[in-house]
Amino acid sequence: MKIKPNLQNSSLTRRIYGFDENLKRKKIDVIEEKPITLFLNDQEIVTMMTINDYPEYLALGYLLNQKMINNRTKIESVEFYSDLETIVVRTRKKTDYEEKLKKKIITSGCAQGTMYGDLMESLDKVKLNNSIKIKQSWIYDLSKKINLTPSLYLKAGAIHGCVLCKKNKPLVYMEDVGRHNAIDKIAGYMKINKISPSDKIFYTTGRLTSEMVLKSVQMRIPIVISRSGFTAWGVDLARKTNLTLIGRAKGRKFMILSGEKRIE
Amino acid sequence: MKIKPNLQNSSLTRRIYGFDENLKRKKIDVIEEKPITLFLNDQEIVTMMTINDYPEYLALGYLLNQKMINNRTKIESVEFYSDLETIVVRTRKKTDYEEKLKKKIITSGCAQGTMYGDLMESLDKVKLNNSIKIKQSWIYDLSKKINLTPSLYLKAGAIHGCVLCKKNKPLVYMEDVGRHNAIDKIAGYMKINKISPSDKIFYTTGRLTSEMVLKSVQMRIPIVISRSGFTAWGVDLARKTNLTLIGRAKGRKFMILSGEKRIE
Repeated sequence: MKIKPNLQNSSLTRRIYGFDENLKRKKIDVIEEKPITLFLNDQEIVTMMTINDYPEYLALGYLLNQKMINNRTKIESVEFYSDLETIVVRTRKKTDYEEKLKKKIITSGCAQGTMYGDLMESLDKVKLNNSIKIKQSWIYDLSKKINLTPSLYLKAGAIHGCVLCKKNKPLVYMEDVGRHNAIDKIAGYMKINKISPSDKIFYTTGRLTSEMVLKSVQMRIPIVISRSGFTAWGVDLARKTNLTLIGRAKGRKFMILSGEKRIE
Repeated sequence: MKIKPNLQNSSLTRRIYGFDENLKRKKIDVIEEKPITLFLNDQEIVTMMTINDYPEYLALGYLLNQKMINNRTKIESVEFYSDLETIVVRTRKKTDYEEKLKKKIITSGCAQGTMYGDLMESLDKVKLNNSIKIKQSWIYDLSKKINLTPSLYLKAGAIHGCVLCKKNKPLVYMEDVGRHNAIDKIAGYMKINKISPSDKIFYTTGRLTSEMVLKSVQMRIPIVISRSGFTAWGVDLARKTNLTLIGRAKGRKFMILSGEKRIE
C-alpha cells in the first residue's frame, strides 16, 4: 500500500476521558477535526473540517472535484500555512470559478458537500473504461484487506475511509471525518502523482449518495464498491454513466446496482 | 409518537432491481433523494438533497440552525412549489443573512454542512437547562424504542435518523439522507409547534461531529445521545457548553463524554 492510515501521526487523535455505562472513568481515543480554509489564488473558497493529514491533496482534490480546476490546469504552488489554518492553491492562469460559484448545491453526503450545477451537465461527455473487469474474489479480497488494515477508524471511530485500488490490491487508503474529504484527497493524490483512473477500483466505507457517485465518475474511476448502502439517484447516475456500482459489500454478500457487465 | 418515519409515503423510496453476489436478480428498496432549492424572501440560499417529506420544517429548521432567522423572527409564509423543487420562506422584515453568508464554513458532517462563523461566538451566551436529569434506563428505553420503530432505515438503508424525546419517550422521529436535514426538520417542527427544548433529549443515529453538537446547543437541547461515535471537537464544544453528550449507545453500553452531572 502506498498510503496507509496515519496511525503514527499522533496529532490526528486525542486521548480523552469519559464515563462508561457503570460511571467508571475510561480512557478513549477520539478523532481531531480542524477547520482549514482553502484559497484559490486570492479568492477564499471554503473552510473544510478535516483531520488535516494531507492538506495539499485535499485542497487540489476539492478544487478538481468541484471543477474549479481541471487536470490540465497548471498549478504554480500549493502552500499550507499551519499557523493560519489556511491552504492556498495558486494556478498559472486565473480560473473561472466565480461563475461556477453561482450555482451552488449543498448536497446530501458528508462534509464539504458542495457541488455545482455544471457537474451534472458534464456527465454526458464522460466515457468510463469498458474493458476493465472485476472478479468476485477481488471484491472479497479488497474488503478483507481494507477492513483488517490498522486504521484511525479501528482506533477511534467516527471517521470514513476511501481506498484507491487496482485489481485486488489497495493502493491509497485515505481517512477523514467526511467521506468527501477522503475521496478528494485521493483525487489530489492522483493529480500530483499522475495516476491513471481507468484501471482503478474505488472502495469506500460510506454511503453511495448521488454526489459520491458524481465524484467517482468525474474522477473517471469505472468501478465503485461500498460497504454501505446507496440512494436511488446514486444508482440512476451510475446507470446513466455506465459506472459499475457495488453496494452493501459485507462478508460474502454484495449487491450490484449498475454496470454488471464488468463483473467476471 | 407524534411523528413517525413515513413508511406510508411511497414517494420516499423506490423499488429497483440489482444483482446479488450469485448474480441473481433481486428486488431492493432504495431511498429517493431530491434537490430542493431554498429561498429566504427573494434571496436563493442553498439547494439541499433531501427525501423531501417535510420541506416546510426543513426550510425553517435550516434557516434557524444557520442563524439566518431566529425564534423571534416573524414568518409570513412558507411556500413549497413541488413542480419547481423550490421552497420560499417569507419573513415580515428583511433579515441580515447577507452579512452572515460572508463567513461560510462547510463542515464535516452530512448534508447541508454549512455553518457560519458567528455560531461559534454565540456559544458563550448559551445556558442549557441544568436541572433536567436523565436516567440510565431511559437511554436503554429510547435506544430500544427507536431501533424497533419501523423506519425507512430498516426498509431501505442509507438514511439517518434524529429523534426528539422526552424522558423515555420518542416524540418526533425524522429521517433524511443527511443527518443535518433530520435535525433541521426537528428544529423547524419545534418552531412551528412552539416546543420547549429545555426538558428534551435528542437522539441521533449519526456521528457527533462539532457541527451536530453546535446545532443541538443552538436548539437549547441539554442532552444528546448517539449510537455512533464522536470527534474531539464535538466533545470540546459539549464540555464548553455543559451539554450532556452520550455516544456509542449500543445494547447495554454507552459512553458519557460531557455533562455527566445530569445522569441519575
